[in-house]
Amino acid sequence: MNENDPAHEITDRALCQECDVILYRIPMTPDDPATAALLDAVAWTPTGLVACVAQQHDTGEVLMVAWMDRAAIRETLATGRVCYFSRSRNRLWRKGETSGQVQRLVELRLDCDGDALLALVDQAGAACHTGRRSCFYRAARDGVLAVIAEPIADPAELYSRSEAAP
Amino acid sequence: MNENDPAHEITDRALCQECDVILYRIPMTPDDPATAALLDAVAWTPTGLVACVAQQHDTGEVLMVAWMDRAAIRETLATGRVCYFSRSRNRLWRKGETSGQVQRLVELRLDCDGDALLALVDQAGAACHTGRRSCFYRAARDGVLAVIAEPIADPAELYSRSEAAP
Repeated sequence: MNENDPAHEITDRALCQECDVILYRIPMTPDDPATAALLDAVAWTPTGLVACVAQQHDTGEVLMVAWMDRAAIRETLATGRVCYFSRSRNRLWRKGETSGQVQRLVELRLDCDGDALLALVDQAGAACHTGRRSCFYRAARDGVLAVIAEPIADPAELYSRSEAAP
Repeated sequence: MNENDPAHEITDRALCQECDVILYRIPMTPDDPATAALLDAVAWTPTGLVACVAQQHDTGEVLMVAWMDRAAIRETLATGRVCYFSRSRNRLWRKGETSGQVQRLVELRLDCDGDALLALVDQAGAACHTGRRSCFYRAARDGVLAVIAEPIADPAELYSRSEAAP
């Protein structure tokens, strides 16, 4: 990819479809009003991220907390499949891209001061890279930091390639 | 307060009971095993904080996201009343200290990679400084960023003195 190519002009963080590295480029289409309003209302961290809590829409289980950037929010709202920004891999992370444990978006909400999102989702299988339904499987309970949930899937089978924790 | 006073030796962030400013001092008592294990397992931000999601323990409502430091976690576990660290006020923030809308702790959980807490709480009244039950009252819905919940209390009455958003 040639970054001097006008087709890759830098305006927003996104993945290049050709070379799979992060770059900044012109969004292909204008944002719809809901997406534009949401992006405008977010109080971004200095590195352009916002925390996102994922909650199973019907049972209320809090599944995980991860981060989104502008591109992740755009993709999530456009596709209905939840996409985060992985800080450890420094790229977009389509939840379930390796494990198959995808999150379908039901609704994306924003808090009062704009620094946290709540994604109501329909989680297939395990949200956690340990194979547990929820990442919050440790609790201060009975005087110890107790493990309060067991895996529902084998991580070795879920991640036969390379998807890991954010 | 005299910071050279050995009684105020710096070991941990906490509020001085005498002068109500943040300082670092020796904890009065050793941590119990659950608190020590939890503090040891947290992956702190560079400024010594960790994100905390508060969820109503019985209904599953996600109420808010705020931050805790070591002192906030210690106080929360020791007292059973949720205490955060307010980044805007740069001090401990005992939820409800002005508004009366306190959070009683039911259980404190930690996620797989240690960078997020989930506090199961019993929230009195409104968690949000706008007087709404939950801070997540805006949603990308019907093509706009919609307000999906109304206040259940008057913020002017809740905050007749000075408690505000974190």
